[in-house]
Amino acid sequence: MSAKPTAVVLLSGGLDSATVLAMALDDGFDVAAISFSYGQRHDGELAAAGRLAARPGVIRHVIAELDLRVYGGSALTDDIEVPKGRDVDAPGDEIPITYVPARNTIFLSHALALAEVTGARDIFIGVNALDYSGYPDCRPDYIAAFERMANLATKAGIEGTAPVRLRTPLMELTKAGIIKRGLALGVDYSRTLSCYDPPDGDVLVHCGACDACQLRRKGFAEADVADPTTYTAG
Amino acid sequence: MSAKPTAVVLLSGGLDSATVLAMALDDGFDVAAISFSYGQRHDGELAAAGRLAARPGVIRHVIAELDLRVYGGSALTDDIEVPKGRDVDAPGDEIPITYVPARNTIFLSHALALAEVTGARDIFIGVNALDYSGYPDCRPDYIAAFERMANLATKAGIEGTAPVRLRTPLMELTKAGIIKRGLALGVDYSRTLSCYDPPDGDVLVHCGACDACQLRRKGFAEADVADPTTYTAG
Repeated sequence: MSAKPTAVVLLSGGLDSATVLAMALDDGFDVAAISFSYGQRHDGELAAAGRLAARPGVIRHVIAELDLRVYGGSALTDDIEVPKGRDVDAPGDEIPITYVPARNTIFLSHALALAEVTGARDIFIGVNALDYSGYPDCRPDYIAAFERMANLATKAGIEGTAPVRLRTPLMELTKAGIIKRGLALGVDYSRTLSCYDPPDGDVLVHCGACDACQLRRKGFAEADVADPTTYTAG
Repeated sequence: MSAKPTAVVLLSGGLDSATVLAMALDDGFDVAAISFSYGQRHDGELAAAGRLAARPGVIRHVIAELDLRVYGGSALTDDIEVPKGRDVDAPGDEIPITYVPARNTIFLSHALALAEVTGARDIFIGVNALDYSGYPDCRPDYIAAFERMANLATKAGIEGTAPVRLRTPLMELTKAGIIKRGLALGVDYSRTLSCYDPPDGDVLVHCGACDACQLRRKGFAEADVADPTTYTAG
């Protein structure tokens, strides 16, 4: 029997969530990890999530199946080309086509269900206000509103037990800061996949040109540490 | 081309959501209906939802697949016996075993995605504060908090377009009041299924003894109208 409290961690298999997992374990939690098979273009990130979850302290790893393709409207789930070579330093005001409608709300809702059945009060999610790429559902106001709603949604809200807390330890970090923190905690970033559009099948190769790859490369460069990632593009 | 605005309606196939659908259409909306295949014990309610959605004004009916059984903990999705013959007039303070963790939050999150891709600003849900059976995620405070979160979650939140509104036209109605309103709008309640545990296969027969059946019977009795439902139990 473990005496540690349980936390739920949203684990996509990318660099950010790999770091969040290490932070939650370092904070003294046992982790119930949750990943999503939502009709994304490739399974590489789920494979990466599985590798990351196979470690002591992760007591459960749920893959939630939900098909977000029925809603359409995103390059991550539809036959819409993933933009390459966009200037991520000047993304403009538009919400990118890689935005999946209501995705974080859906993901956090499922995490809330897992928290309720595992008795977890803490839900960790790797959203970030700096490198947030123009997605509305990564902002601090949004996270606070979700937390408030969550505490009215669940048994805790009626039974007056301890409230649900959304933990966003990456919120104020740069990508370089995230990488440094993760390396200090022993994260092996070669086992993570960030790419929106990885070359066929090989989960350890990144395209190097989509927004996610560009932010990853830039992060390693700014952290001034060796980038363990294999990229196919310049 | 329709000039009507689109609303999303959560359509379970039960008495309440059938009434809400009729109300949304009567309010002048085209309807994008959404139902959920979530690992519930029976498919009867999805069959009922399909029948209800097959009418003019319903421009789209999405069945979202998501397996809530992975979370466990409810008689509606697990091999836990559905309580029969409970006193629904004195349910006590406990949250019933038929509560599915975070279910309305998950359902509303998916409805929010559908609203975003269809351009709908109005999301109708048949929650009710009177006959709410002790579920935390049917209360007005919860609904208001979800609406606030939804407006921060989506493109509307960034682009400053018209806000999302959660519409809960049944919130203050008794079951009898819901039935009377529905009959005035021409709802055929013989095509709906409320039962948590219907006898095998036949979607038009109700057990008569679970909480949902008891509330349904009581509603027809109090509305003083003929109950078109076939029940197997006393």
